[in-house]
Amino acid sequence: MGFPRSAARVSFVGGDEGPWKVERQVTICGAPLAQVSALRMEEGEHFLERQASWVLQGVRSNERYLSRDEKAGLTRLQAGLGRPEARWAALIPITKSKAWWELAQDERRAIMEERSHHIALGSKYLPAVARRLFHGRDLGAEFDFLTWFEFADSSRGAFEELVGALRETEEWSWVEREVELQLRRFPWGTGAGSDSGSP
Amino acid sequence: MGFPRSAARVSFVGGDEGPWKVERQVTICGAPLAQVSALRMEEGEHFLERQASWVLQGVRSNERYLSRDEKAGLTRLQAGLGRPEARWAALIPITKSKAWWELAQDERRAIMEERSHHIALGSKYLPAVARRLFHGRDLGAEFDFLTWFEFADSSRGAFEELVGALRETEEWSWVEREVELQLRRFPWGTGAGSDSGSP
Repeated sequence: MGFPRSAARVSFVGGDEGPWKVERQVTICGAPLAQVSALRMEEGEHFLERQASWVLQGVRSNERYLSRDEKAGLTRLQAGLGRPEARWAALIPITKSKAWWELAQDERRAIMEERSHHIALGSKYLPAVARRLFHGRDLGAEFDFLTWFEFADSSRGAFEELVGALRETEEWSWVEREVELQLRRFPWGTGAGSDSGSP
Repeated sequence: MGFPRSAARVSFVGGDEGPWKVERQVTICGAPLAQVSALRMEEGEHFLERQASWVLQGVRSNERYLSRDEKAGLTRLQAGLGRPEARWAALIPITKSKAWWELAQDERRAIMEERSHHIALGSKYLPAVARRLFHGRDLGAEFDFLTWFEFADSSRGAFEELVGALRETEEWSWVEREVELQLRRFPWGTGAGSDSGSP
């Protein structure tokens, strides 16, 4: 996928072409996204083209909630993206309510970590479930956040557990739109170009 | 100026046309901006045109550091933009260092408020010196922040005191580029269209 190393714009292009095949696409809440069969990530701003159904924009940015200790802890635990064994990925675009964005910084932090344990929950599944967050709200993008996950076939259960636990938290009561795409890297056979259709 | 009420993109266009006449333009640190004689603000993304020397982009966004009490305090104290008596304004574009952006949230908050008293300092000059912050970094804009100030002629000293005090703080040691434009609303005479050239 060639993820950029520093703060930079990315575009997730949903359509019928791309290195990631969509295995599952579900609307958790709010308006759905048009169903697609494949996904790719492009660096920079990317506009809708013939083969694409949608383009979701985001930007890597500075941390908004992590304390120094939490940041050090995550850095120590986390694995990079693009591990050869991580043949599965997920893209979860989320938008939070207007009321969330009107909260003060300490109120959002308290809901997110002190009461919902978002950072602690994510850490529990590191390094197995790698995550990267992109911000869309200030760009005027379709979603406030795009979270990208990568994991091996053996960690699919862990991924499900993680997102299931997050959706039970108080923080998630502020989410008003959420879509989940589970993706498998193409080609997934041992030989290049092999396509067995489904696992 | 017609400032937008909610989170939205704005563009400050520097050139030789606009309702704000540039009375003073100084580079505090880092690379200068081309000298201009007038400024205007446009809603939305605005591209460079013949009459313009530069366009600075920003977006109104959620609070990044304010606690609930601080936010309530500021809301209680502050005056809106566009007060008839506020014939003076200032635009201060700022970029902070890469090292600043790599700090964790609690480290940035500690430098900014607990040690530099940025929020408390700003409050001291409310409602006389009205302020509005726009974020540029996630847009890939030329500056990380654009701060807009509005004040009456009688509060020019207060404005100078405020920015002088901020520049003495520990927080400002992370600023690597800063330009200051002081502006006067045109026309500034009592009759519409009067132009006395200088104060």
